[in-house]
Amino acid sequence: LDESAIAEARARQDRMTKPRGSLGVLEDVSVKLAGLAGACPPELPEPAAVAVFASDHGVHAQGVTPWPQEVTAQMVYNFLAGGAVVNVFAAQVGARVTVVDIGVAADLEPVPGLLTYKVAPGTADMTQGPAMTPAQARQAVETGIRVAGELAASGARCLVAGDMGIANTTASAALISVFTGLGPDEVTGRGTGIDDAMLAHKVDVIGRALALHRPDPADPLGALAAVGGFEHGAIAGFILGGAAARLPVVLDGVIVGASALVAAALAPESIAGCLAGHRSVEPGHTAALRHLGLRPLIDLDLRLGEGTGAVLALPLVQSAARALRDVATFDSAGVTDKDVLETGQS
Amino acid sequence: LDESAIAEARARQDRMTKPRGSLGVLEDVSVKLAGLAGACPPELPEPAAVAVFASDHGVHAQGVTPWPQEVTAQMVYNFLAGGAVVNVFAAQVGARVTVVDIGVAADLEPVPGLLTYKVAPGTADMTQGPAMTPAQARQAVETGIRVAGELAASGARCLVAGDMGIANTTASAALISVFTGLGPDEVTGRGTGIDDAMLAHKVDVIGRALALHRPDPADPLGALAAVGGFEHGAIAGFILGGAAARLPVVLDGVIVGASALVAAALAPESIAGCLAGHRSVEPGHTAALRHLGLRPLIDLDLRLGEGTGAVLALPLVQSAARALRDVATFDSAGVTDKDVLETGQS
Repeated sequence: LDESAIAEARARQDRMTKPRGSLGVLEDVSVKLAGLAGACPPELPEPAAVAVFASDHGVHAQGVTPWPQEVTAQMVYNFLAGGAVVNVFAAQVGARVTVVDIGVAADLEPVPGLLTYKVAPGTADMTQGPAMTPAQARQAVETGIRVAGELAASGARCLVAGDMGIANTTASAALISVFTGLGPDEVTGRGTGIDDAMLAHKVDVIGRALALHRPDPADPLGALAAVGGFEHGAIAGFILGGAAARLPVVLDGVIVGASALVAAALAPESIAGCLAGHRSVEPGHTAALRHLGLRPLIDLDLRLGEGTGAVLALPLVQSAARALRDVATFDSAGVTDKDVLETGQS
Repeated sequence: LDESAIAEARARQDRMTKPRGSLGVLEDVSVKLAGLAGACPPELPEPAAVAVFASDHGVHAQGVTPWPQEVTAQMVYNFLAGGAVVNVFAAQVGARVTVVDIGVAADLEPVPGLLTYKVAPGTADMTQGPAMTPAQARQAVETGIRVAGELAASGARCLVAGDMGIANTTASAALISVFTGLGPDEVTGRGTGIDDAMLAHKVDVIGRALALHRPDPADPLGALAAVGGFEHGAIAGFILGGAAARLPVVLDGVIVGASALVAAALAPESIAGCLAGHRSVEPGHTAALRHLGLRPLIDLDLRLGEGTGAVLALPLVQSAARALRDVATFDSAGVTDKDVLETGQS
């Protein structure tokens, strides 16, 4: 981040017609955007582009979710038809949705709005062997970098990461356990809604996979290959690509949070341009955000994914940037500044 | 609220293409909007109209804030010029701002966008006598009802309450103490930013005023007259007027929260259509929200007022309503529903 733009943004926040610090976290957001852009005020983070990375998971065979695997492909078609929650939220806030088939276990028909960058039709079962090969892990990450670059080239000024993949909270919990050092029981949640017995089974499945592979957090591509998903690799790459384009990347819930841990392990500075859109109810997400040092903008018990929580946060990010650009200063508006009164400055 | 619309909204949430309950608090918001409108899906809560009620306070003479009283009028001109934070946030989310002079201690020039409904040029000092007469209290409330009606008649489908008034966190803390039964020391905060000594003095001032008047929470107009502000009365009326028009009212921070306590004491059912836009750092606001039974949508350490926190929450409220209206159902989208699989329904 650009230190002089940061200092300029902090100074401007203090001259704006409002008590100092009274915009709380949004002042920090505006300062971060200035630092990322290297300019104060920074360009407004709009239009925003949402990329929903869809993929399937071999660990689905272990019975970690009641949802059939076909739902991943069905939801992709729902996204493309504009019928999913992420589409509706994006319509409300003026964002564009792109769907990326990074590994759906079905041959999807080519439809406008779908990018077919399939690494393979689903990962392998992490309890039986690595979820993917090292080459596939690299391909997933590189694809995410490419998607970020394409969206930036098409005019996006803010990137939003989302996911779709039945069973992907299982792979997310495994990755979060690797990178935070917390046990599977501490980072595994109920995902889209499972009972106590299935939760215990899910924790056991993750524990077995981690015992089998012993992933090394210092080898992020190796950890990704062992227990991750193609969408995790792609979203990690998307974060790297966003950082390369110096665009803010608004993160969604636990799947994106797990992917951000991979990105942070690959290139810690890539997280400097990330904003945590929301905090989901998944315990692993809280652990991931703590590890990343990010404070979520929204905290409303969401647990949907698709990028929905991040899309909801877009108006907050955009409002923070717009305030830095457009709010009058005490001088320009002829408003008395108590801090100037107090210090005797004129 | 309309019970059949509520039931219909709950049922529709469960058929939407997402795991049940996965939109968390936003599902409750959508259900509340349906109940208020008496229809499922309810009309979208847009366009939204923000009313900023500006007024001055006699208790300013007690030295409860470092800001000079003239700043109230200066900020009114800033609102009318579009330079304040609430203007900028409203521009981002597509809301319209109206400023109401309900009691500014200055003769304001008539400017487009300013409604001059001045009850008096500032309240009297609550430590010396009642802040206002019973007739003034009633006039303030009736004016707020009228403003809500005017905005509804002009096409607003969502109302947002905001405030401006140097020293009005003092009157707010006094009102919150009356209606929650908590002590002044528990509900008084630093407002726009005061030091420990001034905070202790502010608590003492509020305690003296409450000891002088012994306001009765069962007599809300009496309590308002004793220690309130004209904007508190007007905002309480605005909430009543919103409820009468069956429009959602999005609440802002501690001043609006204190006003909502007055509205709740006058007509408890008026709160059913209110949504807490955010939670400010003022301790009294948390106490007020708890008393009202409202969960805030945004919690980002804001302490600005003007309606800013409520305006930021508008996209969340609108997204919740839009999801209920536009998201595909499992049937319509051809997506398999795990709960139907589990129960063996077809």
